[in-house]
Amino acid sequence: MGETAYRIDNLQYANWSEKIFHQMREGRVDAVHVTIAYHETFREMVLNLEAWNTWFERHNDLIMPGRTGEDVRIAREAGKTAIFFGFQNPSPIEDDIGLIEICHQLGARFMQLSYNNQSLLATGCYEAEDPGITRFGKQAIAEMNRVGLVIDMSHSADRSTLDAIDLSARPIAITHANPHWWHAALRNKKDEVLKALTTRGGMLGFSLYPHHLKDGGDCTLESFCQMIAESASRYGAQNLGIGTDLCQDQPDSIVTWMRNGRWSKETDFGEGSAAAPGFPPMPSWFEDNRDFDAIEVGLKAVGFSSDEVAGIMGNNWLRFYDANFGPAEKE
Amino acid sequence: MGETAYRIDNLQYANWSEKIFHQMREGRVDAVHVTIAYHETFREMVLNLEAWNTWFERHNDLIMPGRTGEDVRIAREAGKTAIFFGFQNPSPIEDDIGLIEICHQLGARFMQLSYNNQSLLATGCYEAEDPGITRFGKQAIAEMNRVGLVIDMSHSADRSTLDAIDLSARPIAITHANPHWWHAALRNKKDEVLKALTTRGGMLGFSLYPHHLKDGGDCTLESFCQMIAESASRYGAQNLGIGTDLCQDQPDSIVTWMRNGRWSKETDFGEGSAAAPGFPPMPSWFEDNRDFDAIEVGLKAVGFSSDEVAGIMGNNWLRFYDANFGPAEKE
Repeated sequence: MGETAYRIDNLQYANWSEKIFHQMREGRVDAVHVTIAYHETFREMVLNLEAWNTWFERHNDLIMPGRTGEDVRIAREAGKTAIFFGFQNPSPIEDDIGLIEICHQLGARFMQLSYNNQSLLATGCYEAEDPGITRFGKQAIAEMNRVGLVIDMSHSADRSTLDAIDLSARPIAITHANPHWWHAALRNKKDEVLKALTTRGGMLGFSLYPHHLKDGGDCTLESFCQMIAESASRYGAQNLGIGTDLCQDQPDSIVTWMRNGRWSKETDFGEGSAAAPGFPPMPSWFEDNRDFDAIEVGLKAVGFSSDEVAGIMGNNWLRFYDANFGPAEKE
Repeated sequence: MGETAYRIDNLQYANWSEKIFHQMREGRVDAVHVTIAYHETFREMVLNLEAWNTWFERHNDLIMPGRTGEDVRIAREAGKTAIFFGFQNPSPIEDDIGLIEICHQLGARFMQLSYNNQSLLATGCYEAEDPGITRFGKQAIAEMNRVGLVIDMSHSADRSTLDAIDLSARPIAITHANPHWWHAALRNKKDEVLKALTTRGGMLGFSLYPHHLKDGGDCTLESFCQMIAESASRYGAQNLGIGTDLCQDQPDSIVTWMRNGRWSKETDFGEGSAAAPGFPPMPSWFEDNRDFDAIEVGLKAVGFSSDEVAGIMGNNWLRFYDANFGPAEKE
């Protein structure tokens, strides 16, 4: 009899509704890390927290706020889904290092150091050049380590990511991306980066966002799970999890906001194109939170043990949450 | 009989008071470009505009708002000093390209693309690496060109500065710095940069801030003026002006704010040191706005013609204002 198998999706940005919260329960998802900032300032991010407070109040039979790994266990016992907050961009801390602790106090547990473009802290994966972590970035990493706000480099450029792994005293995460050797998208991660990440105890969450998949929305479950098997042999199954990047029910105006924020007068199509500017269709075998069983079946089919499947489906993220969401231990 | 000789100081950040506005008049200063942002957000910069509106209301016998070169001539006629606004950091435009035109509408005429550190647009001179102008930076330069907000690279790193000169369709400025060959401070500018700047019609304003001076506060007027003479031979006298960086009557807490903003938990001493953390003492021959006569005398003493002296003391900046503070002409 193994340990309890938890199910965690470490990245979603859906157009939240009671319907989706019910689907989380139907899919037996114990915890979801949800994005609450793409380009938001601190104050705008707080508006998103206010919206979540309202959802927690109205739907407290389905969801609850998550702050620690223990909350995932509490959610499981209560038959709810624990919701953890994260930023895909450091925009909510603006230019103010003191906002890192404030954001942690408000519940943020992941923060990307850059989102596609250069930030005040690090370089994004769409910039032509990547000078690595900035002066402010070095201080921000130390402060994030201190308070327990996890560094996420999903949309960052390679050198900045390697620098962050090296500079951080605690393991970091790539919450939603796939290996570049499987599908050579700009957003997918080079072998060198994934080796450095996982050697230091960092976690990779596999993405189901079609632009990150081999063959896009036509990617097969078997291909996806074989890629995970190969990743396990390269990086260790214990450092792998799921971060679907599910953007369910979002209008295309949202992907335009994600890509363009307020910085661009021209339309930036990011991973899309002028001919296909919107959200791409998801693979048929993963359309919403009810479809996690399919991934579990697929992982077993490519030869993972029950413990390995439980790790990838959630237990690895839970171990990471337990270790990294609280203050650093004093030396 | 030559043209009228105007006197313009293209950079000050004093602790503004009626006393200083009187000194501007005593020194016959027709226009001053004043800093209204170091790390301020848009809203915080607007608070500084509100303070200036109050000064304009109370002291309208001494100062007036400056928006165009013509306002310098109007100020001269009226016996007032025209005040032009500028930012030493792009922090007031935050992540929003639309704020560039808004800031111009509110009177901003210069904006530095970075201040010591990496910004969203460009790299500052204290960063270890300089990748040049970012994706957002390229769009911001085009928008600044369009509306007539002058690019200032005084605190930027070399490659970013060369990129900005190259990318900008209109001449740019280094409002307050000296040549690196005269005094090898990190903030002073390399010969290569000054050649590229002035070849494209850009302006250099010579700084009187002691950290930018050979021998610091002990720098002689003769040494300063000989440096200007050598600069004229290298870069053309018509591309030179004054940008004193006068921080008159400021408490040392202000230089701490300038250097540390909100980004640093450690104390960054910038051009100072732990042993000398405050504002350095000014040279005895330039302590406030009443001392411009001394510079004029010094320039004549090193052999400049009357027209050249008039150019450096203000007419070159006025020509630059006339050409660069309005919308770009349609092609």
